[in-house]
Amino acid sequence: MNDDGRFRRSASHFTDRITADGRDGWPVEAGRYRLVVSRACPWASRSLVVRRLLGLEGALSLAVADPIQDERSWRFTLDPDGRDPVLGIRFLSEAYDARERGHPDGVSVPAVVDVPSGLLVTNDYLRITLDLETEWTALHREGAPDLYPEHLRDEMDDRMDGIFRDINNGVYEAGFAGTQEAYDEAYGKLFARLDQVSDHLAGQRYLMGDTITEADIRLFTTLVRFDAVYHGHFKCNRNKLTEDRVLWAYARDLFQTPGFGDTVDFDHIKRHYYQVHEHINPTRIVPRGPDLRGWRRPHHRDELGGRPFGDGTPPPPPPEDEVVVPL
Amino acid sequence: MNDDGRFRRSASHFTDRITADGRDGWPVEAGRYRLVVSRACPWASRSLVVRRLLGLEGALSLAVADPIQDERSWRFTLDPDGRDPVLGIRFLSEAYDARERGHPDGVSVPAVVDVPSGLLVTNDYLRITLDLETEWTALHREGAPDLYPEHLRDEMDDRMDGIFRDINNGVYEAGFAGTQEAYDEAYGKLFARLDQVSDHLAGQRYLMGDTITEADIRLFTTLVRFDAVYHGHFKCNRNKLTEDRVLWAYARDLFQTPGFGDTVDFDHIKRHYYQVHEHINPTRIVPRGPDLRGWRRPHHRDELGGRPFGDGTPPPPPPEDEVVVPL
Repeated sequence: MNDDGRFRRSASHFTDRITADGRDGWPVEAGRYRLVVSRACPWASRSLVVRRLLGLEGALSLAVADPIQDERSWRFTLDPDGRDPVLGIRFLSEAYDARERGHPDGVSVPAVVDVPSGLLVTNDYLRITLDLETEWTALHREGAPDLYPEHLRDEMDDRMDGIFRDINNGVYEAGFAGTQEAYDEAYGKLFARLDQVSDHLAGQRYLMGDTITEADIRLFTTLVRFDAVYHGHFKCNRNKLTEDRVLWAYARDLFQTPGFGDTVDFDHIKRHYYQVHEHINPTRIVPRGPDLRGWRRPHHRDELGGRPFGDGTPPPPPPEDEVVVPL
Repeated sequence: MNDDGRFRRSASHFTDRITADGRDGWPVEAGRYRLVVSRACPWASRSLVVRRLLGLEGALSLAVADPIQDERSWRFTLDPDGRDPVLGIRFLSEAYDARERGHPDGVSVPAVVDVPSGLLVTNDYLRITLDLETEWTALHREGAPDLYPEHLRDEMDDRMDGIFRDINNGVYEAGFAGTQEAYDEAYGKLFARLDQVSDHLAGQRYLMGDTITEADIRLFTTLVRFDAVYHGHFKCNRNKLTEDRVLWAYARDLFQTPGFGDTVDFDHIKRHYYQVHEHINPTRIVPRGPDLRGWRRPHHRDELGGRPFGDGTPPPPPPEDEVVVPL
């Protein structure tokens, strides 16, 4: 929180990259790294979707943190004995501390940990998915889509910047605003951008055209949380997502696409936001609404045509031990 | 708040009645009493609607308190010099204290004050409107509707009891719940009752049939606040009012009926709830949503027939000094 009541998101502190050539000391290697996420977190959920679409489940294992952090932050209390069975740690902070004792920022997800050494490699949420898409190609499944096509990158980066500023991070700026003025500003730019995106998506199936890209993933992880938490808890309440015909159909289309909805745990999402942010919800009571059954209803977006996976194919169902209780 | 985390509404402490025969010492008399309300408050708003429908504006004057209470409760900070121009007091508590120093409960609206003595007469929100309807008849306007028809009273009382318990007060039980369990219980009975009322209103225009009664007024003052404050702030979020086709059309119908919508001040409503209840909204930030323009859209409820005012007529517009800035 700045002095002016505006919420500012910190840059990631650990920005090493895992690359095909291993130039930062971390070469892409099957079975070597562990992706740590919370299913509550929209930034971490990007990597959950990308890992599913690219079929990286076998190459990059997954640790799912409890949606409720305590004063030591993300913890593995969902696992037997409260320890991640692969890393053997109780708190994600142990991997951070192993990498750099007294690191200056908080502990965040997504995080990628080097299993042999137990060291945190990166918590760079803006980079992790792009590297999974462009550096981990040797390990992609057959039929994996190209989520960050080279000829579209400039336009995608631009579009994703605007979506980040006004939507992905905009909802946090509204919800964590310390003054009415800071809130009003965030609300204004959020809905202006949503309206713009909605217009754009009225005539085409995905943000970049006919095929799913990283840009859709980044928009999706915010939209899927919109009515469940941002509308009420973060006061982003001009309208619900379900009241925007285009965006609601677009979000449902993605939700029903293999690799999207099967990563979403609304129970984790709701409990995290409403129970962790005591400064905006001191009672920690979790609302029972909204009715989420609509996510499964027909979206009719296929009438716009499109080739969701481009030259690729949809991913198979998730591994059995990663199945989320469905709606 | 009870020990079990359940919110319990106190009974009104001052239950004297103003009657035609003056048996409690307070005879009905034009110009003698002053009705003190907040336009934020659903209980006080009942009396605003009834006073309008019955044309009592000339006989019973009106004091409108600031929607934001301070530690001395309701105050007349909207008036010149922060004093009610008729009673000459700065805080409604002064009339309470004049009546009974050290009275045991809080200061609430609606309240009726005897102007000559400055004494509070009653804060009995469940009784005030019924007495305006049945005891003040000599002062009703020509064409005033019968809002509490004798032959319907048993059935109305029953229906209003259920609406009170599960809806009017139910939203507070949800919003002020101290435990998840108390909240869940309130949420369950609220939406069960709303569903029942919605079914009932699918085939008839008003709660008691063809004509507006006190029962509609009591339901209306909660419904009109639903999306603006109860949905988000009180976590009554299974769905918005606008998502229930029948109840939304019913509420719009009433809103557009003279005497209803012209008493509603959404600015007062939103600022009151979000700024006064710091225990559930510590930032005191007031959401900019929802978009309220829908209240003016066609409701088509007249297709159900009905005689809104029975043998009576609609009231004329409100006095100039009581006009609320429209949506």
